Amino acid sequence: MASDLRLKESLPNLTDEIVETYTSVGTINHLGHCPLPKYDEVISALEDLKDILYPGYRRREGLHIGNVTYHVGDLVDGLHDKLTTQIARALQHHARAELGIDPCQDREDYQARGQSIAISFLQRIPDLRRLLATDVRAAYDGDPACKNLDEVILCYPGLEAVTVYRLAHELHGLGVPFIPRMMTEWAHKQTGIDIHPGAHIGPHFFIDHGTGVVVGETCEIGAYVKLYQGVTLGALSFPTDADGKVIRNMKRHPTIEDRVVIYANATVLGGKTVIGHDSVIGSSVWLTRSVAPYTTVTIEKPDLRIRGGDATEIDVTAVEPEARAG
Amino acid sequence: MASDLRLKESLPNLTDEIVETYTSVGTINHLGHCPLPKYDEVISALEDLKDILYPGYRRREGLHIGNVTYHVGDLVDGLHDKLTTQIARALQHHARAELGIDPCQDREDYQARGQSIAISFLQRIPDLRRLLATDVRAAYDGDPACKNLDEVILCYPGLEAVTVYRLAHELHGLGVPFIPRMMTEWAHKQTGIDIHPGAHIGPHFFIDHGTGVVVGETCEIGAYVKLYQGVTLGALSFPTDADGKVIRNMKRHPTIEDRVVIYANATVLGGKTVIGHDSVIGSSVWLTRSVAPYTTVTIEKPDLRIRGGDATEIDVTAVEPEARAG
Amino acid sequence: MASDLRLKESLPNLTDEIVETYTSVGTINHLGHCPLPKYDEVISALEDLKDILYPGYRRREGLHIGNVTYHVGDLVDGLHDKLTTQIARALQHHARAELGIDPCQDREDYQARGQSIAISFLQRIPDLRRLLATDVRAAYDGDPACKNLDEVILCYPGLEAVTVYRLAHELHGLGVPFIPRMMTEWAHKQTGIDIHPGAHIGPHFFIDHGTGVVVGETCEIGAYVKLYQGVTLGALSFPTDADGKVIRNMKRHPTIEDRVVIYANATVLGGKTVIGHDSVIGSSVWLTRSVAPYTTVTIEKPDLRIRGGDATEIDVTAVEPEARAG
Repeated sequence: MASDLRLKESLPNLTDEIVETYTSVGTINHLGHCPLPKYDEVISALEDLKDILYPGYRRREGLHIGNVTYHVGDLVDGLHDKLTTQIARALQHHARAELGIDPCQDREDYQARGQSIAISFLQRIPDLRRLLATDVRAAYDGDPACKNLDEVILCYPGLEAVTVYRLAHELHGLGVPFIPRMMTEWAHKQTGIDIHPGAHIGPHFFIDHGTGVVVGETCEIGAYVKLYQGVTLGALSFPTDADGKVIRNMKRHPTIEDRVVIYANATVLGGKTVIGHDSVIGSSVWLTRSVAPYTTVTIEKPDLRIRGGDATEIDVTAVEPEARAG
Repeated sequence: MASDLRLKESLPNLTDEIVETYTSVGTINHLGHCPLPKYDEVISALEDLKDILYPGYRRREGLHIGNVTYHVGDLVDGLHDKLTTQIARALQHHARAELGIDPCQDREDYQARGQSIAISFLQRIPDLRRLLATDVRAAYDGDPACKNLDEVILCYPGLEAVTVYRLAHELHGLGVPFIPRMMTEWAHKQTGIDIHPGAHIGPHFFIDHGTGVVVGETCEIGAYVKLYQGVTLGALSFPTDADGKVIRNMKRHPTIEDRVVIYANATVLGGKTVIGHDSVIGSSVWLTRSVAPYTTVTIEKPDLRIRGGDATEIDVTAVEPEARAG
Repeated sequence: MASDLRLKESLPNLTDEIVETYTSVGTINHLGHCPLPKYDEVISALEDLKDILYPGYRRREGLHIGNVTYHVGDLVDGLHDKLTTQIARALQHHARAELGIDPCQDREDYQARGQSIAISFLQRIPDLRRLLATDVRAAYDGDPACKNLDEVILCYPGLEAVTVYRLAHELHGLGVPFIPRMMTEWAHKQTGIDIHPGAHIGPHFFIDHGTGVVVGETCEIGAYVKLYQGVTLGALSFPTDADGKVIRNMKRHPTIEDRVVIYANATVLGGKTVIGHDSVIGSSVWLTRSVAPYTTVTIEKPDLRIRGGDATEIDVTAVEPEARAG
């Protein structure tokens, strides 16, 4: 029982055939270009940032107020270098791939711009900590199964997704291409929660359970908003231009005002849809129009057919209208 | 093209500003306290436990009945130490963070309590293996695409989630704080299936596909139950106390009796909701009341608008009422 | 505060009790059998394959047309060996576990068959690259938030799932047991998208967001099809044989013809269901019958109850019928 080494003689030919496709199907390989942002470095920066935002929880133990400055100072120094390099790469790639700038003509100092953005970004960390403290509090306040704030930080996927989103949103706001999406898609992989870095989300935001949540690029979400698993804040059909191409810059996703709760698997669609403040959208509701403040929207009559058991045919229109999933 | 090292001179100031927030926003850092359970150690213990529960599948090859005792004995010995330490940390943290016990007054021997619980937990492994064998069987029996029992153990995310849940549920029952939720959220991340360790679930349980499933803390699930992807067993709106705080200890989630099948994306809500044994809940059904044993609940008339094609406007109320998603 | 070493004396007994269950509950351990495919090796092969399919994006930098042949040649050579071994293991396990072949009587040369299949599989890579280039293009064309093709390859979970599916489908078609499911369940874990390797899917396929998507084993999907998050292409209730066992080989899942779009959380069920080409299935639609080409199916009247706000009781049957989630 053995493989036959002579059959391996076909492999060099096969390699040549594969390499030939790097020319003939050149759209899905990245050869001889300026470097792309490196995935592993971007994720490593994310892990460092989480260590600074929530010190003492995951990677490093034994921190106290007397030694934490060394720890944080070291991480900040390293992040400066990592982010400068990765942001410079993203800017340079963007210039060539999207702006069509000829590399030979390009006198832009991407490294210097990368550094400037990296430092601006790092300076936002104290504000981000103040903001994220409201999100941690929101999770504790909003979930009866939650025991304390440490449980939120150690266990809650909603906080993980929101933390990464808030970091990515800052970079997005500073004009960094590419890297914000790498970050939020990493969080999507970890949590099943897909928040576009372009979305705007106020303080004290909580997503419970979270798997399947989608928050689109042009959403605007106020303060004290709570979402449950499977909620889509999405687009209606995309308008196309005269050539049939989708138009890429317009508000396609809804606005959710302060103190709105949206229960599990509800769908809210459309760039003109506004959910007024203090409203409640019930589980599994499907909504494509605006509602005024203080509105409650629920499924009224789930048209169910119930057979067998004690029922012959039961009318279930009398379902408790407050019903919402948590 | 280079970054300017002089710009790094702002970083020490920035570090000080960040460290200042560890006092001013002190709720989201863990400094100078007793140690928390360590995430990596808890997950490492989970991996060891899975190796004991299903030997020969993943990490270690070449096991046979003549050498497996050494392998398992070594893992059990190591688990004793890991679990003792992590459970002791969880108990100590719980005492300070939630029970408000003053560390200086605290004479509890957490290490000894941790050891006692760790040993009690490890002694449940033989029973857990008998229980999990029914879950593996349930997956094979319930999925026509499944080829054999080994495929279930190597590939099925539903089994992964149920295995971790059953381990976490034992620890939860032994009064271990924190660690059970770390475990089930790890499984949630791997599988998209979120089962609270407090839920009660009988033998021969199967979740197919599983992404988006949520099983709440106070669910009670019987034997031979089958769930599909996207099923929520959730709460209705949470009762609040006189101060407007959510009440944290009461049955909020449904009871699912023996031999119930709940198809994809169905939602069953409320602590008083009981799905009687041998019932079938169809795909996408939304239910907030009890049904008697042997009941079938399906969507009767999905009010659809069908335009174009061969249709002018078609009445689709005649949809096959047995329809359920698998 | 210490654990008591004497309590560890119970551990050898416990180990013996656990090992006893490897005989009494012998269905969930793999001892003394021929080796199974090794999970880590299968995933390592997947990572190598992705490096060949999309060179220059993730693991290796600095590739250009002058050095890429060495890189790819080395990966192909290593894949030949890895795949030969793992496929041979899968074939041998299948022969014993499912075909009931007595190992002592078995003269099959699994290593030679594994090698032959591995080489056939590797020879499909150039065609797979041509096919996957259409999927990358489909993502860019279909998502207004997408900036360029590189973003698709670096960030999009839909492409990750489709790439792994297309590799696994080739192995499935070559008669390899087990390994294709290991691969697609790995992708499911990464992305929340569960595509069975047995499904047939045409070129230019795009899944946006993707969490919760399930594509069943016997689906047939045409060209230029687009799915959104939470879409189930599933089975109706399974037919059982005279002994009450589910029947494992028949078309249970729908057919989706060319240029169909299925929006978020829609459910299409049944082996006889055909969605005609150029049709649109709206968000949250639940469908168990066929529709003709060029049909649009949407939820017409979500029976909602809207209270409070500016509404007294609003009739919302006038919902925009084009509505679909993106």
